Amino acid sequence: MKYYTGTEKGLNLKEVNRAVEQAFADHGKDLVQMPPKIYVTLPQGDFRTMPAYLPSLGIAGVKIVNVHPDNPARGLPTVMALTVILDIPTGKPEAIINATHLTDLRTGAAGAVACKYLSPKKEVVLGLVGTGRQAQAQVAAIGQEITINEILVWSRNPVHAERFSTDIQGIQCHSTSIERVCDCDVLVTTTPSKTPLVMSGWVHEGTHINAIGADAPGKEELEPALLSRASVFVDDMAQAVHSGEINVPIQKGLFSKEKVAGTLGEIIIGKKGRKRQSEITIFDSTGLAIQDLAIAKIAMMHGTAIVLPFA
Amino acid sequence: MKYYTGTEKGLNLKEVNRAVEQAFADHGKDLVQMPPKIYVTLPQGDFRTMPAYLPSLGIAGVKIVNVHPDNPARGLPTVMALTVILDIPTGKPEAIINATHLTDLRTGAAGAVACKYLSPKKEVVLGLVGTGRQAQAQVAAIGQEITINEILVWSRNPVHAERFSTDIQGIQCHSTSIERVCDCDVLVTTTPSKTPLVMSGWVHEGTHINAIGADAPGKEELEPALLSRASVFVDDMAQAVHSGEINVPIQKGLFSKEKVAGTLGEIIIGKKGRKRQSEITIFDSTGLAIQDLAIAKIAMMHGTAIVLPFA
Repeated sequence: MKYYTGTEKGLNLKEVNRAVEQAFADHGKDLVQMPPKIYVTLPQGDFRTMPAYLPSLGIAGVKIVNVHPDNPARGLPTVMALTVILDIPTGKPEAIINATHLTDLRTGAAGAVACKYLSPKKEVVLGLVGTGRQAQAQVAAIGQEITINEILVWSRNPVHAERFSTDIQGIQCHSTSIERVCDCDVLVTTTPSKTPLVMSGWVHEGTHINAIGADAPGKEELEPALLSRASVFVDDMAQAVHSGEINVPIQKGLFSKEKVAGTLGEIIIGKKGRKRQSEITIFDSTGLAIQDLAIAKIAMMHGTAIVLPFA
Repeated sequence: MKYYTGTEKGLNLKEVNRAVEQAFADHGKDLVQMPPKIYVTLPQGDFRTMPAYLPSLGIAGVKIVNVHPDNPARGLPTVMALTVILDIPTGKPEAIINATHLTDLRTGAAGAVACKYLSPKKEVVLGLVGTGRQAQAQVAAIGQEITINEILVWSRNPVHAERFSTDIQGIQCHSTSIERVCDCDVLVTTTPSKTPLVMSGWVHEGTHINAIGADAPGKEELEPALLSRASVFVDDMAQAVHSGEINVPIQKGLFSKEKVAGTLGEIIIGKKGRKRQSEITIFDSTGLAIQDLAIAKIAMMHGTAIVLPFA
């Protein structure tokens, strides 16, 4: 059995995007086994258990990931993750992977694949609502698929937005009002908000939005009126209804499952997609176990491991 | 993060029984979080993902366990397991435990706790149907709770039964017919059978039965008529209906959920139990994640670990 840590360093993001794209394509073709994510509640947070089997990539396993919002005050990340990979012919534990940073990257990759298919242009102004680790991951991954000419960034905390602008290398980046940020070609929201931050009136026709932040019941970033104007694509229907951007609007009767335009997998295999240049498209990302397995495969191919006895 | 392997060596079985008993007591009081076991099917077997949180023992985590029946031909166990333990206040991965042999022990412990409460006598003749690793684990664990005066053993393969008899230390053990084996005080069935092996007519009044083998849909070891004569206790209702000894009889309309007399946890907390000396009692064990966490706690207390970087 092997233990991998630090494998995110030096990963080829384009390779990650392609692996995640293949995983979603298989999801679109209904070739994967992926039971719904299971939540267990702890006093200061929760953890989620995500098993899956991806026959075409030849990988099976389970990601275990926590969400503890008070962790930063203790000097720990809010989200930490471990992926266990099983040998398919025998079921033997084959690898354990520190998946904390890989989780950021695989979520970034899903956003990048969504942009590849749904962005209205190949060269874009990118708007960012939220400036955490996931905002960075989205910029890095999306930049592999389309050209980011300029970034507009907003954070609830202006200091964070300024710091993000300063830290970004090689792309013009401006910290500005959320309303101004929403006036872009591709908008990426990555906050843990429980009330809508992005108002429908701020978003012009043709915009593509990666709605990344909502990944648990009660979370939402977009005004429900925006969903009604847009073609909303999800990563996985069951997970999105339970915990994605659409979960609160559905609970409130402001949106319904039937209004979902399709899944990212269906877009990749050509069954669904952007229909008009003027269409607003939304990708509602909750994060799938198959993304974790796809990136685990690449991490194991390129990473070095500590060998552990297992008898 | 720590990696534990070989922790089953030298474990105090009585301590394991007590920890498993406490876990079941908490289950009886509805104090645990334990979503149903999730099955993922692989070409030559399956794997099961078992998350749980046990507040009273202060432990949370996930066991991942495979079942690959063709493994012995490859020189590997049919069942292998890994448990991931999370730090409760932060959700950080705290330990990874090789749980292959611990899985045997925690199942043995559940059988032992069932015997503590349901055995008709304190000194018994023990009947064994099946002679694999789990038969050994049951004998060792039950011997901590009641006195085993004699063992009668049967296996589909007579060579296995003979070998088992020879290997047992300190207890008289006879290999005999399955009908004779069933004429005992405590009967333990540990086979992967998909057709009933134990006929109702062979079992006399007052017998307690640990029905351990059935742990997946389609498996059964006992003639359904025997269930109807007995008080059937389960480890967990949802899991037993899905994959325990009662799963096939329920599917066939020969038994029903409503006929279940209670859970092992309810017995331990005094809500349920054996009512008469002449009663036949059955413990239908499917194996719970809380048992895995209880034994993981002990393994971590006594075992030595390899320290792994996790950043």
